[in-house]
Amino acid sequence: MALGPTWTNRSRTRGLVLDAIRAARTISRVELASATGLAGATVSELVRELIDDGLVVEAGPGAPTGGKPRTLMRLDPRARYSVGVLMERNACVIVIVDLAGRPVARTSFHGVASMPPDQALPVIASQVDALLATAAVDRERVLGVGLVSYGPQDRRAGVLLSPQPSEQWLEYPVAERLGQALGLSVLLDNDAAAAAIGEYWMGAVDRRSTYGCIYMASGIGGGVVVAGEVYRGSSSNSVELGHMSIDVDGDQCPCGNVGCLENYAGPSALVRQAAATPGLAERLAPDPDTADFLTEFARIAAAADAGDPDASRLIERSARYLGAAAVTMTILFDVDAIILAGPSFAMAGPAYQTVIQEEVDRRTANWRTHPVRVMPSVNGPDAAAIGAAALVLQSELTHGRAQAKDRRDERASRHASSGGRWRSLQCPNG
Amino acid sequence: MALGPTWTNRSRTRGLVLDAIRAARTISRVELASATGLAGATVSELVRELIDDGLVVEAGPGAPTGGKPRTLMRLDPRARYSVGVLMERNACVIVIVDLAGRPVARTSFHGVASMPPDQALPVIASQVDALLATAAVDRERVLGVGLVSYGPQDRRAGVLLSPQPSEQWLEYPVAERLGQALGLSVLLDNDAAAAAIGEYWMGAVDRRSTYGCIYMASGIGGGVVVAGEVYRGSSSNSVELGHMSIDVDGDQCPCGNVGCLENYAGPSALVRQAAATPGLAERLAPDPDTADFLTEFARIAAAADAGDPDASRLIERSARYLGAAAVTMTILFDVDAIILAGPSFAMAGPAYQTVIQEEVDRRTANWRTHPVRVMPSVNGPDAAAIGAAALVLQSELTHGRAQAKDRRDERASRHASSGGRWRSLQCPNG
Repeated sequence: MALGPTWTNRSRTRGLVLDAIRAARTISRVELASATGLAGATVSELVRELIDDGLVVEAGPGAPTGGKPRTLMRLDPRARYSVGVLMERNACVIVIVDLAGRPVARTSFHGVASMPPDQALPVIASQVDALLATAAVDRERVLGVGLVSYGPQDRRAGVLLSPQPSEQWLEYPVAERLGQALGLSVLLDNDAAAAAIGEYWMGAVDRRSTYGCIYMASGIGGGVVVAGEVYRGSSSNSVELGHMSIDVDGDQCPCGNVGCLENYAGPSALVRQAAATPGLAERLAPDPDTADFLTEFARIAAAADAGDPDASRLIERSARYLGAAAVTMTILFDVDAIILAGPSFAMAGPAYQTVIQEEVDRRTANWRTHPVRVMPSVNGPDAAAIGAAALVLQSELTHGRAQAKDRRDERASRHASSGGRWRSLQCPNG
Repeated sequence: MALGPTWTNRSRTRGLVLDAIRAARTISRVELASATGLAGATVSELVRELIDDGLVVEAGPGAPTGGKPRTLMRLDPRARYSVGVLMERNACVIVIVDLAGRPVARTSFHGVASMPPDQALPVIASQVDALLATAAVDRERVLGVGLVSYGPQDRRAGVLLSPQPSEQWLEYPVAERLGQALGLSVLLDNDAAAAAIGEYWMGAVDRRSTYGCIYMASGIGGGVVVAGEVYRGSSSNSVELGHMSIDVDGDQCPCGNVGCLENYAGPSALVRQAAATPGLAERLAPDPDTADFLTEFARIAAAADAGDPDASRLIERSARYLGAAAVTMTILFDVDAIILAGPSFAMAGPAYQTVIQEEVDRRTANWRTHPVRVMPSVNGPDAAAIGAAALVLQSELTHGRAQAKDRRDERASRHASSGGRWRSLQCPNG
């Protein structure tokens, strides 16, 4: 609610203009004034500044309106870039995206989770460096790095609050150390929240929509976005769907809760279930003790896809459980769409989407409010990494910090007392 | 996110100043500038306007600071009033609150739910009129009426989307008809959301807190408040806790879902459980077919309080189920506090609070984020009606519409095209 001091309003109006240009793709100054509610003179001044900074370029004349011809503006997608890093139990994915949120380079590798963090982070940094070099992206144009992983986290401090994959990672300053190794600003965020905001950034949802995201990689997470902003809660540890109880009399989970969704519907649960299913256990020989659930899960999904009735039954049951979670998300967050994101959904194909949509339709049939659409992510299996990069763009653009270096330095000196540039990259609303 | 046209910003800054004065109780102009980030001249001008409108009065000199003496300002609590109306299955409660959110008059009566709406709303209107007369509150000083009831609702249209208590209520224009009968603006909202925001308005929670509210009357509802704003979702039908599934294999509920919390833990469920408990059924002779669950529930709660072991077991089991819902609220909304509001919690005393706190502590023990406090509502059994009145204050004050009549008329003419005064009273963020 609070309007900040004047320079904050200034950077907010700048962000508003940038975001309106991004959303419209091409737009005239008059349309910008109408879309943002800002005075014409303010719009003209901000547009001039954005053109000077190289973020916006003129895109020729608009359609004739009978009056003075209008010049259209658009973002220059190659003016800035951001980097998204997903750090998962099984793999690390790095993407570079342009100002329009489109990936221009990607890499992935295994093995990071088995290292202590003081070894793992330099490895990630060197992979980011190599990817920037391969893609020939000028570092001066990189706005920053979004590093995303599972929760819980202390997002402001840039640390994980879970002793996963090993005790050494608990409260290790991952964001700060990666930032030091790269010489770039790094923000830490939740993988599922990143996947969720990536949909908005790619224009896959209505800009005023409240929508949810179920993110399934080796575990299950979630995110909710309200009119383009991630729902944060009091400490940015929200929508932890995998540890939501779906059975009040269910088994104890190491997290402390009982009947956690992840233990019924997640890839590790399916691997255990497959190993305990006579026939399927022999046909697939899944290893319930593997650290690489995703590969085992992919084999079960492939078997289901090929018509194995036991594998199909397991996938369908998992989808029904996820459907129950989608219903809870609908009942509690009043979402109008639910996005299925992450590699596990991508591997399993449309089976999940169909069943989850059925469950939502049937179980909310008498609410008489509005339909809830269940959709696959437009960002495919890399939704979290692309979303991580989008979070950086959002932080820099919408909140008005994507200025040329001299203006940035001036700004930084003005709010040095609030923690300086480092902290300024953490999203302001958490 | 969007900044509106200039007059909206003007009314927003005015609301910001009013809210800062309200929060601080007494505050100087210099402190106001610092609290709001507004320029000193803007603060002085807005304060002069608020004094002219009679909303704010000078409250003498502040503590000496060595410089020029500072004059403190405070709200005049009797400058404006609002009315809160709770329309429930069993009873209707009306309160009048002053500008500080304190109730100055209250009444309640039965029988409205058994009438068709075209009879019930004139009855409610005449009770509001009578209460205003009894309390000697000048109608010119009444900002509006908050009418709250169960969900689902179409809040903007001011209609209920449920055929409860009878088919005639479904989509009947309750807000419009009550407004016509009273000659006052009426906003419709959810009872649990109102109870939730009432806590904020009374200063019972930190102003930046994200907190949840479990509301239990004859049914179970919920609300979440983020930094002083009700979490709305896409249609203001959020946090419907009573119809959240706690058992994926549970019984079918008429709402369409299975294993709904209300059917395990709500007053009607407890009355059914008591009637099916040998011994207790004979001792209390509860009527499972009664329409007045609350009275029957009160008898069970009283028996538990008096030491009846069967009644105590039922209350404790209900509290454990509600504890599971509180855990889900914590895991999904990342709340830092959970308020227990409504007549059923008020009847049952501290038994619920103790058990729900235990469940939350135990089941989120390994999250390492922050503690979650479970607390009773400061507004007692009337939390929803008081909260309904607070919603009107919030709409009028924070969003800057509590001006003198001439300024209000001027404003109304300026945004007549957006639907006029009637619609303007609907909270703008839903």
